[in-house]
Amino acid sequence: MKFEIMRHRLLDGLNDVMKAVSSKTTIPILTGIKLEVTEEGLRLTGGNSDITIQTFIRAEENGEQVIRVIEEGSIVVQARMFYEIVRKLPTSYVEIEVNAHFHTHIRSGKSEFHIIGQDSSEYPLLPEIQDNRQFAIPADLLKSLVHETVFAISTSESRPILTGVHWSLKNGELVCVATDSHRLARRKMTLEQLPIGEFSSVIPGKSLSELSKIIGDSTQSVHVIMTNQQVLFKTSNVLFYSRLLEGNYPDTSRLIPTEYKTTVTMDGKALYQAIDRASLVAREERNNIVQFTSLGDNVVEISSSSAEVGTVEEEISTTLIEGEELKISFSAKYMMDALKAVGGHDVKVQFTGVMRPFTLKSVHDDSVLQLIVPVRTY
Amino acid sequence: MKFEIMRHRLLDGLNDVMKAVSSKTTIPILTGIKLEVTEEGLRLTGGNSDITIQTFIRAEENGEQVIRVIEEGSIVVQARMFYEIVRKLPTSYVEIEVNAHFHTHIRSGKSEFHIIGQDSSEYPLLPEIQDNRQFAIPADLLKSLVHETVFAISTSESRPILTGVHWSLKNGELVCVATDSHRLARRKMTLEQLPIGEFSSVIPGKSLSELSKIIGDSTQSVHVIMTNQQVLFKTSNVLFYSRLLEGNYPDTSRLIPTEYKTTVTMDGKALYQAIDRASLVAREERNNIVQFTSLGDNVVEISSSSAEVGTVEEEISTTLIEGEELKISFSAKYMMDALKAVGGHDVKVQFTGVMRPFTLKSVHDDSVLQLIVPVRTY
Repeated sequence: MKFEIMRHRLLDGLNDVMKAVSSKTTIPILTGIKLEVTEEGLRLTGGNSDITIQTFIRAEENGEQVIRVIEEGSIVVQARMFYEIVRKLPTSYVEIEVNAHFHTHIRSGKSEFHIIGQDSSEYPLLPEIQDNRQFAIPADLLKSLVHETVFAISTSESRPILTGVHWSLKNGELVCVATDSHRLARRKMTLEQLPIGEFSSVIPGKSLSELSKIIGDSTQSVHVIMTNQQVLFKTSNVLFYSRLLEGNYPDTSRLIPTEYKTTVTMDGKALYQAIDRASLVAREERNNIVQFTSLGDNVVEISSSSAEVGTVEEEISTTLIEGEELKISFSAKYMMDALKAVGGHDVKVQFTGVMRPFTLKSVHDDSVLQLIVPVRTY
Repeated sequence: MKFEIMRHRLLDGLNDVMKAVSSKTTIPILTGIKLEVTEEGLRLTGGNSDITIQTFIRAEENGEQVIRVIEEGSIVVQARMFYEIVRKLPTSYVEIEVNAHFHTHIRSGKSEFHIIGQDSSEYPLLPEIQDNRQFAIPADLLKSLVHETVFAISTSESRPILTGVHWSLKNGELVCVATDSHRLARRKMTLEQLPIGEFSSVIPGKSLSELSKIIGDSTQSVHVIMTNQQVLFKTSNVLFYSRLLEGNYPDTSRLIPTEYKTTVTMDGKALYQAIDRASLVAREERNNIVQFTSLGDNVVEISSSSAEVGTVEEEISTTLIEGEELKISFSAKYMMDALKAVGGHDVKVQFTGVMRPFTLKSVHDDSVLQLIVPVRTY
């Protein structure tokens, strides 16, 4: 294998695949990056036990020669070291040559590195994925869909299935749900381009967080291909594979109340900031709990107290309070997470009693629903 | 005590003093900030066992009323909590009122915090410092003086005196020296405004690092007042006190060679980058050692090898090599630190033999001198 490549293009490609490479892995070859060069260009692959990222650099782009291929071939090189070398090389071109016994030479200007690579045939193969279950979501929408749900996954391994986000497609509607059993986040979306068949899959939360770092904020389509064990997200230059979690996701639909006793419509940003302030006191206690009390005259009070620090209280005007009077306690963190996901100024908070889960959504649409289980404090 | 203050001015002041407050301290009251309000304004004090920072916010600035003082007084409040509260308050004004038993009320808009403060008379008093040993250094020069020396202090507590930088004034010249016994950094400076008397003091390296974060890049004077146990740096709005280290600093002048066998003049940036690259391989070994070899024709080779990773070599053209041929090994990190401190393109590296300390300085002046002890590798 021997080729010469524009250094900044190689670096761009490495920046993409490096996101999947972890130095902590039980499979030693996964600390490496696979390089495969053909007449068409250079394919880079990096991965860990959950996700794999692949990117392809074309030999010619817009009439410009990016790669000069002298001999086709492939090699696995230690990822972190190779990335640092390419980052620090002195000139705009890099020559990479692999001789017998995986001896790899990296040259740029008068600088020359000799490192030992690994046999690329030992690198895990990617699953074959058929395109018939493919659908498309604009990148920015996919990103917000992830941010509106993934924070609510469980971080405990006691019920592994809850560390993922449940994606299901039924009647042309994609529903994404995450819950740690203390709160729940749900995002619904009508798909414009439908795949063949329905599905119900659980994607690891970590994979979705990594995915959202890689995809841009453009409206370009990301193609999603769901299989039984893997999901593939395809952007114009990156393939992002994640394994799916095995097991059945609990039926969460019956958790969401259908009748409400108190409905408060208010400015979500003002509520967020008041809870953020109250949390300064609340978090000094172990549980970070704040109180929400309806005071009449469309005013609510947010308050908290800590034996060590002191107390805080604040009144906020609401747009409207309908139904029964209410005094309820909940986790400041869960409420702030939920308000961030719902976003915007006009938020509807609906309660069914002090010990029953309550919901948050936007006044304008209910594509995003957040549910929080309150806490008994008195 | 009761006063109202513009929130962003209070926040600016807190930003200054917070730099000295540590949550890890053996003296509980030092987790607090002292507030003292008089008709003239608000004095804020924060500190740890090494440094104390004090700032003063005038009640009136440029004809604008910053503070409305209703009742003079003082209090100590928990620093981190108070800072976070002020940062998150909803309006541009903050009212602070202290009642009996140090009950402290913080009001802004409809938000109200009640926290318990501490008796300000329990806060340590600052040393009285007389101005007769005062001299001035422009802020940007003071900052570079710190950066050119402080990295070379010892991080080990086995010889505590070496964790400081030795500042001495003799014959109108300020000399700052730091060493960890493997390398040494020295900066000389002629003072324009001389204090009364000479001094020889050791300032903790950590204090100088903190100081350099606080002072700006302006050419405004920083006044330095040296006493037997403390040093005070005065800028227009901040007083920065540091304790001095006790004990005698070793005489380092005889370590610096006066005769040289090989002198290499070369581009400091090119040398830095080549060593940075070689260090990618070298640091995989425990000692991070690179080789420097003169090759003739005014070329030197930088190389390194690691049994695990491989090898690297690179040739660099120099301006001139005078004297004996040379092959020497040293720490890549020490060399990079030294080159950063010397700065610029024209660097003179002078050797007295493979096992003797060698020096680096700029071709243009010798105000900054760096010395490195080489390593035996063959």
